Amino acid sequence: MAGDSFGKLFTVTTFGESHGPGLGCVVGGCPPGLALCGADLQKDLDRRRPGTSRHVTQRKEPDEARILSGVFEGVTTGTAIGLYVENVDQRSRDYSKIMDRFRPGHADYSYQQKYGLRDYRGGGRSSARETVMRVAAGAIARKYLNERLGTRIRGYLAQIGPIVLDAVDLDSVDSNPFFCADPSRVEELEAFMVQLRRDGDSVGARINVIASHVPPGLGEPVFDKLGAELAHGLMSINAVKGVEIGDGFAVVEQRGSQHRDELTPAGFVKNSSGGMLGGISTGQDILASIALKPTSSIQVPGRTIDIHGEAAEIVTTGRHDPCVGLRATPIAEAMMALTLMDHYLRHRAQNADVVTTTPTIGFK
Amino acid sequence: MAGDSFGKLFTVTTFGESHGPGLGCVVGGCPPGLALCGADLQKDLDRRRPGTSRHVTQRKEPDEARILSGVFEGVTTGTAIGLYVENVDQRSRDYSKIMDRFRPGHADYSYQQKYGLRDYRGGGRSSARETVMRVAAGAIARKYLNERLGTRIRGYLAQIGPIVLDAVDLDSVDSNPFFCADPSRVEELEAFMVQLRRDGDSVGARINVIASHVPPGLGEPVFDKLGAELAHGLMSINAVKGVEIGDGFAVVEQRGSQHRDELTPAGFVKNSSGGMLGGISTGQDILASIALKPTSSIQVPGRTIDIHGEAAEIVTTGRHDPCVGLRATPIAEAMMALTLMDHYLRHRAQNADVVTTTPTIGFK
Amino acid sequence: MAGDSFGKLFTVTTFGESHGPGLGCVVGGCPPGLALCGADLQKDLDRRRPGTSRHVTQRKEPDEARILSGVFEGVTTGTAIGLYVENVDQRSRDYSKIMDRFRPGHADYSYQQKYGLRDYRGGGRSSARETVMRVAAGAIARKYLNERLGTRIRGYLAQIGPIVLDAVDLDSVDSNPFFCADPSRVEELEAFMVQLRRDGDSVGARINVIASHVPPGLGEPVFDKLGAELAHGLMSINAVKGVEIGDGFAVVEQRGSQHRDELTPAGFVKNSSGGMLGGISTGQDILASIALKPTSSIQVPGRTIDIHGEAAEIVTTGRHDPCVGLRATPIAEAMMALTLMDHYLRHRAQNADVVTTTPTIGFK
Amino acid sequence: MAGDSFGKLFTVTTFGESHGPGLGCVVGGCPPGLALCGADLQKDLDRRRPGTSRHVTQRKEPDEARILSGVFEGVTTGTAIGLYVENVDQRSRDYSKIMDRFRPGHADYSYQQKYGLRDYRGGGRSSARETVMRVAAGAIARKYLNERLGTRIRGYLAQIGPIVLDAVDLDSVDSNPFFCADPSRVEELEAFMVQLRRDGDSVGARINVIASHVPPGLGEPVFDKLGAELAHGLMSINAVKGVEIGDGFAVVEQRGSQHRDELTPAGFVKNSSGGMLGGISTGQDILASIALKPTSSIQVPGRTIDIHGEAAEIVTTGRHDPCVGLRATPIAEAMMALTLMDHYLRHRAQNADVVTTTPTIGFK
Repeated sequence: MAGDSFGKLFTVTTFGESHGPGLGCVVGGCPPGLALCGADLQKDLDRRRPGTSRHVTQRKEPDEARILSGVFEGVTTGTAIGLYVENVDQRSRDYSKIMDRFRPGHADYSYQQKYGLRDYRGGGRSSARETVMRVAAGAIARKYLNERLGTRIRGYLAQIGPIVLDAVDLDSVDSNPFFCADPSRVEELEAFMVQLRRDGDSVGARINVIASHVPPGLGEPVFDKLGAELAHGLMSINAVKGVEIGDGFAVVEQRGSQHRDELTPAGFVKNSSGGMLGGISTGQDILASIALKPTSSIQVPGRTIDIHGEAAEIVTTGRHDPCVGLRATPIAEAMMALTLMDHYLRHRAQNADVVTTTPTIGFK
Repeated sequence: MAGDSFGKLFTVTTFGESHGPGLGCVVGGCPPGLALCGADLQKDLDRRRPGTSRHVTQRKEPDEARILSGVFEGVTTGTAIGLYVENVDQRSRDYSKIMDRFRPGHADYSYQQKYGLRDYRGGGRSSARETVMRVAAGAIARKYLNERLGTRIRGYLAQIGPIVLDAVDLDSVDSNPFFCADPSRVEELEAFMVQLRRDGDSVGARINVIASHVPPGLGEPVFDKLGAELAHGLMSINAVKGVEIGDGFAVVEQRGSQHRDELTPAGFVKNSSGGMLGGISTGQDILASIALKPTSSIQVPGRTIDIHGEAAEIVTTGRHDPCVGLRATPIAEAMMALTLMDHYLRHRAQNADVVTTTPTIGFK
Repeated sequence: MAGDSFGKLFTVTTFGESHGPGLGCVVGGCPPGLALCGADLQKDLDRRRPGTSRHVTQRKEPDEARILSGVFEGVTTGTAIGLYVENVDQRSRDYSKIMDRFRPGHADYSYQQKYGLRDYRGGGRSSARETVMRVAAGAIARKYLNERLGTRIRGYLAQIGPIVLDAVDLDSVDSNPFFCADPSRVEELEAFMVQLRRDGDSVGARINVIASHVPPGLGEPVFDKLGAELAHGLMSINAVKGVEIGDGFAVVEQRGSQHRDELTPAGFVKNSSGGMLGGISTGQDILASIALKPTSSIQVPGRTIDIHGEAAEIVTTGRHDPCVGLRATPIAEAMMALTLMDHYLRHRAQNADVVTTTPTIGFK
Repeated sequence: MAGDSFGKLFTVTTFGESHGPGLGCVVGGCPPGLALCGADLQKDLDRRRPGTSRHVTQRKEPDEARILSGVFEGVTTGTAIGLYVENVDQRSRDYSKIMDRFRPGHADYSYQQKYGLRDYRGGGRSSARETVMRVAAGAIARKYLNERLGTRIRGYLAQIGPIVLDAVDLDSVDSNPFFCADPSRVEELEAFMVQLRRDGDSVGARINVIASHVPPGLGEPVFDKLGAELAHGLMSINAVKGVEIGDGFAVVEQRGSQHRDELTPAGFVKNSSGGMLGGISTGQDILASIALKPTSSIQVPGRTIDIHGEAAEIVTTGRHDPCVGLRATPIAEAMMALTLMDHYLRHRAQNADVVTTTPTIGFK
């Protein structure tokens, strides 16, 4: 697949570049009978869409996904779902000046080394515009999980640069352009972003994602532990440099007596494990956190080399997000949805006829 | 595969439980003509082996891997390599008292929910003893990478509980039982571990892994970025709760002008990216870091439930590592080796005839 | 993937239905630097296209494939190639009368049992229209194999009903609507087809495919033998009920002294094995043969049941091929190309650095 | 996997050579709670075992499979099942004289070309001894399918050389060394084999396999049609050169009105389709037929080349089956079982919650 596919049973295989005609994907393995229309995808696509506030890239893309197959009379048929989103506002002229030199922090140099050539228009396949299809496919997974299992997946901006943000009200996340779950901090974020843009610089971010009402049993032993597959999916998002499950790196300083989540008939007493033990979900909330590096396309001049290996200087103009993390929340949620959906089907395949007398604690 | 396989071209498929007759694996896709014998595997197996110091579990296992196929007249044939390690010192009697209750922090509860039953002897398939086969298979990958490409993979203990450790001398790592790269701190670690054991408690750890002389071009766009596959492999190791590539979570507070690794004809000026851009290796060192939670098997009593859902108390006796992180270094190195080897073959498959005029900077 | 993907390294993942907006696919793993444009695909698409003679379905489809990604400045970039073909002439009204009953020999009943519903318009996903994407993707594989290795893949109609046809002149295949390699028999085929259409019936066919100048070494031991993968690909074509490699079923009556292909310094003395030994190509021509069942959509009335299980009668009107075998030659060639291409990359991945002193016999 | 794995959810990954220490496999994805012990595997292993009559190789192998993992307290745990069979009677000396020349019809030449070297002892990995693990793994699939679904898989010798054999009594198959289902013909087979051995020659065979009581819905559209996967599995068996589903190559001469299996409320009126439509099982018996070439190891001298490309003569002594087809019945049954089991789990994964009002005809 050369890296274009995610999932084993519920699969998404994508194509498309930032400055090509459009982006598409094939979603395989979706159970039949799920009501599905364009609007079901649009909600999440709109949350990820560029140009919706002054704090993100000003590229204008409607990002309307067309369902090309796999849905008949309003429901999924169980066969391959083809999705397509047209690129509308490419402006490839912006990129002509970087065709012969490598932007630091971008994939330009590594693609050139790997393939001997590259699509220099907006990063081609390495552009974060690729994630539009993750969100579209993720919306299908999300809908199934929610309708059949009651699973709810919600992410929020947990930190941007020095500003740490709490999950005060997850319902407020979509009411501001930052996916910030603390309404009292939105003004502060506005000011921070304005100053950042003035500096012509960019900044990193942390996104937290929570999946609630996930049935126990998802994930497989050894290599395909739920956390491992989730880490795979999340780390594959552009700019992500770190992934945590549950308490994450905080466990390094913890003692066993402090870390372990004790069990009681009413449920686990806390959730340091992030909802999984031995790589298999417990019924508690799945908790993941990711770190996104600052956008590499900035106006601060930098040193680089050209395609002949000569020293050069570079300034990236064009339209870019000063913080890719700002638009990453729906993408991270999509990867969570795709991972859980795939493992739900995998679990059901193997264990559909399991009967256990052990009660499921704290999972209603 | 139900999670027992890792890799797409260079593959390892494992089996075996902590208290069964033994552990084995099938290594597929190994190029032919690689000189290979038991001793090549034993070096790494011995580094991971239990019972080698008073700071780890006292279970005595020779962990001698037998090569059952795929090697003829001292070299690999290109066909499946079967490996097997016998379990010698199981002492299953230690586990009888936990057969009807779930150890907090262990996979007991999640396995029971998934499968409706479980092998309660030492965690069965969820035991970290499973990693012996990762190390054996990893040793093959490591040998190939080193002999053909000059790649060197080295890990060390970067933190244990509150003690942060620098990589002062990577060559000293194997001269102490902690995989500590700072000889001056070994005494402090000894004391810390003695006190921990007295407390009957356990502690978390951080391991860093560095792969040097990795050719550029490894990794694939979108879902199988090198970092994503590495995160998958590392997060699949028992007890790992966090993975970082390069600067990891520190990027959250960085500015773009600070994070990006500028390029010069002599090489990159620094390595915040951890050796990959757009998910593809650049020729710089691959840098990864993982967080391991404290061992859940501790002597401090804790609350739990039994298999009927009734409240119970638990104390884990038996032989356990007070810090699983102490033995995780060779395992993390193995997962790095397996990931790089697989991607080296994948890269070669697609791009063997690529010719580029762009020089490879800083990679000799 | 739910069956929508073929190949491990050079992959094609398809979507689309007979009566939906169109059909598309994602081709992954294509080496970079291959010159590619729409015309490269069109040649094979035109050979498969409906409506080109009076002996095939009269549905009019231009079947022009649009390249949506993966090609930049006229060459492949090494990233996912998206292809799309619009459906133009669906006429869904033809199918309204069969929405509540199952056509014998069609997938109607089995899809209904599997999914609980089905797209009854022209068979939806089970329609042979699906094969348009196999041909488009196969054309890419074919071009690479031919340009880099000199491989040539050619098929022909070997039998239709009682008429057995020899490969007198493979170059003549594209000069008649039957893919017949014996120009002297074309008139006879015309007359046979005219009568068949008058009968309102259909007939089976046999197609042979020959790949010449295939390098030795393709295929893998045990489960992924070249013949096994080829059988998989060929048997997956709609209506195929049998696959042979080399002498095929004739081997049942052969003696070992008669079957074995002896080796001489000048080459193998004959090719009963069909170009592979132990599942690995030898450098001889790869020979495969397939049997296609007669089209199930015929005007002869037949018994069936409706979706409630009640007895019913059915006559299939609409536009159909009286012999699906007539248009299957380019599809079979495409599956051969996809299989060889995938295994070429797989072979190169593992064995790129193999040096052998044994000469390659009879392969120039 | 380099060809060592079969299946997507219920998987078997094998290793081992004819003259190495033994053969083993890892069976993944088996549902938990299946009662399993060595005797369950032994029945089929004994049917395939060499040395059981004078008509097969005289190599003496007990072929006792040891279960190394995945079974606890007599039932499967849902985790990887490791199996191992020791080689006891290798006699490697038999092969010394062929180490520098290629046996016609064997994999010697193709392996040498692929890998640059080969294990010349008994064909190494290309030996049909490899199939012992298919049978062992297949026995697990078979047991599950039979116990949970009532599926029964039975094969028989349908032709050997010129002798065509009917399925007069499938229950008699195991009462003669030929897997012949017509007791009245056994004497004729005895005489034929005696003469064949006297000639120092070998002969081909045809095996038919029937799976009854297979639920409808197994198989996936497009590339993973049930017949395609079955063809893959069956063609991967050593010496197989042809695969048919249902009427197979006979369809070439059939008319549509003759081929199609009409449906009635009581069931299909016949089974030309071999139990699948559009690649998905219908509930009718699955019918497959394979052609096995005559053994290449014969005493009739033949021409070949040596590893330097020089002309040479060869006579194969050692212990060989004069008709590999004679022992292929349990192997073909095993591949049928593995394919059906995998697709049963795949079907259940996607369609576990499908409700259809259409009755299942003719399937009790």
